[in-house]
Amino acid sequence: MADTGLTIDEAISDRVREAEHPRSHCVRFDVSDPLKLDANVNLVPFQIAYQTYGTLNAERSNAVLICHALTGDQHVANRHPVTGKSGWWETMVGPGRPIDTGRYFVICANVVGACMGTTGPASINPATDRPWGLEFPVVTIRDIVRAQAKLLDYLGIDSLFAVAGGSMGGMQVLQWAASYPERVFAALPIACATRHSAQNIAFHEVGRQAVMADPEWRQGRYLIEGTTPRRGLAVARMGAHITYLSDAALHRKFGRKFQDRDNPTFSFDADFEVESYLRHQGISFVERFDANSYLYLTRAMDYFDLAADYGGVLANAFKGTPARFCVVSFTSDWLFPTSDSRAIVHALNAGGARVSFAEIVTDKGHDAFLLEEPELIAIVRGFLDSAAKARGLGPLRS
Amino acid sequence: MADTGLTIDEAISDRVREAEHPRSHCVRFDVSDPLKLDANVNLVPFQIAYQTYGTLNAERSNAVLICHALTGDQHVANRHPVTGKSGWWETMVGPGRPIDTGRYFVICANVVGACMGTTGPASINPATDRPWGLEFPVVTIRDIVRAQAKLLDYLGIDSLFAVAGGSMGGMQVLQWAASYPERVFAALPIACATRHSAQNIAFHEVGRQAVMADPEWRQGRYLIEGTTPRRGLAVARMGAHITYLSDAALHRKFGRKFQDRDNPTFSFDADFEVESYLRHQGISFVERFDANSYLYLTRAMDYFDLAADYGGVLANAFKGTPARFCVVSFTSDWLFPTSDSRAIVHALNAGGARVSFAEIVTDKGHDAFLLEEPELIAIVRGFLDSAAKARGLGPLRS
Repeated sequence: MADTGLTIDEAISDRVREAEHPRSHCVRFDVSDPLKLDANVNLVPFQIAYQTYGTLNAERSNAVLICHALTGDQHVANRHPVTGKSGWWETMVGPGRPIDTGRYFVICANVVGACMGTTGPASINPATDRPWGLEFPVVTIRDIVRAQAKLLDYLGIDSLFAVAGGSMGGMQVLQWAASYPERVFAALPIACATRHSAQNIAFHEVGRQAVMADPEWRQGRYLIEGTTPRRGLAVARMGAHITYLSDAALHRKFGRKFQDRDNPTFSFDADFEVESYLRHQGISFVERFDANSYLYLTRAMDYFDLAADYGGVLANAFKGTPARFCVVSFTSDWLFPTSDSRAIVHALNAGGARVSFAEIVTDKGHDAFLLEEPELIAIVRGFLDSAAKARGLGPLRS
Repeated sequence: MADTGLTIDEAISDRVREAEHPRSHCVRFDVSDPLKLDANVNLVPFQIAYQTYGTLNAERSNAVLICHALTGDQHVANRHPVTGKSGWWETMVGPGRPIDTGRYFVICANVVGACMGTTGPASINPATDRPWGLEFPVVTIRDIVRAQAKLLDYLGIDSLFAVAGGSMGGMQVLQWAASYPERVFAALPIACATRHSAQNIAFHEVGRQAVMADPEWRQGRYLIEGTTPRRGLAVARMGAHITYLSDAALHRKFGRKFQDRDNPTFSFDADFEVESYLRHQGISFVERFDANSYLYLTRAMDYFDLAADYGGVLANAFKGTPARFCVVSFTSDWLFPTSDSRAIVHALNAGGARVSFAEIVTDKGHDAFLLEEPELIAIVRGFLDSAAKARGLGPLRS
């Protein structure tokens, strides 16, 4: 809040405006050009909000698609129009960074179902002229990727040099390689899995129930009724946030330290530092994210099961793929543990793909992919440099 | 609900009645005999509800105190008066069981702050003639144990043959050994720690915020105002329940299986089996537990830090203790991992105590201590049999 000087209500209305009229590039597809969804619905009309960085070369061969995570958006490497904060992956994307905007044309699109300008439950349903709410169709990771492919068609990009992302972004990378193998030269799925575990589905379900338990949610009609399920969404975020870190990281950051004092207050105030930290995480999330989008995108992750689309055999998803892969996991990530990444690697090997794999030793948990993690940065740089050489990409500015 | 034939509202009013007039043994201490709390308050008058099983021998030397966990109660080995279900530790306590009611006099008391008849926030505050709600003082594990010691005084039991419990019950066992070393012959702390980790505090805080976010909680005055924060408490329970299990156990039980069908419904119904299981856990918990008690007892666990009471040196808590210990952990328990139990063992060794330690291999997670786990049962039996021999306890009925 301090960053923008807005009240939380102003921030929310700002955010709702963003869903329909994003401060981003935005392409609105015509009624004649629907997005076909797995739920057997044609989403029409629909729009995609996206950011780009760098310059597309004459051969149109240097495009890198970044796929964002559950609560991320297209603002990878620029100041966020709602929160005023830096882009979410500026450690990785920018001039001289591993995903070098002096060399690559970087694209990141807000996913279908989200709330930063690509069509989602906070967007206007043309049939009613009101926000979709729960009348918005349930979307899948495959739908999200299908929409991104339409954006690439619109931009005239046949083939991506690379597609990269962590967490839900990594799921999209895997889906890209499976759905459009001929359009991906290099793929970088980080801290992800080919399917969500029962425990992860369970955590998501608790978050959804927290949102739905808030009477201000109004059966999903809160935007129409002028309310906000902020307490429910904040609780959902607090719970999820724990899963993004690790016990060791929480211990290192907070331990059992009390807030500004040595002894307990014998009250329900935020007595421990970790409590006030979590409360802050919850409150600041509400300011920038739509509660229904949270329901839809957690659902998309829960439904993701790449093998199921290929007769239950994961290797078939990658059979004969021409792409080269770099799979990365983190030792302290218990949301998408290394065993999930190993399953990806085994399937890629069985499918005959070129794959390198790195498990990075860190105590920072799942969120390590978003942080200044030197080994991750070196690995991404090395993988992309080598792939660029293989594709004959020179530095654009040299 | 099916067990009792009550509606959820009937079950709740039944439960509230239970807080004041329990279907248990109950001792009400006189105004002249207060419970001194760590919060520097005298709780007065106060009562303790408890169950006993078996017969106290003539030497009064065969008493075993069972300490219950966060959402447990005194109904260890009898049908529960509210839910109609079996006792929560019938695998361990009963005739011929490791804690053999044919041999030992088993006592279990509802903890201070709970809601099954020992004074807590759902009890009547004599100053206002209404339920205490948040005016109830914050209690600690040491307070809980102090109340149990008063109960033993009342029962005329100077020394316990054994004290046993898991999770929050294990914290009480450790506190017993520290506060009253001369009154404990054998101690069995299972799946616990001498202090709560930052991650565990964080999970508890999310649960408390879920309760407090429910408008029906009414700042803790819901019993006076005739409401119930059932949705908030259910969400809290759902989240906590995940931490009691393990990823492997959830995978084994539910995997990614859909409810009664092969494909997703593309909706927010409980599509996966794990979702409907969790929802059921949440709803059935509300029927039997008081929301404010949940706040108070999670707080008691968060505050627990045995070393802090002994100059920061855990070994001092156990220095020269005459008790013999058996410490047990489970490989898949990520709430109280084996490293926590090892810290207990190291402190006991440094304090010169007699201690045996077992880490049991299981995929059942933290809740393994409540389940029919053959190795746990064998270990408890062996430890108590050997301690009984050392204390010269013969079988009562032989």
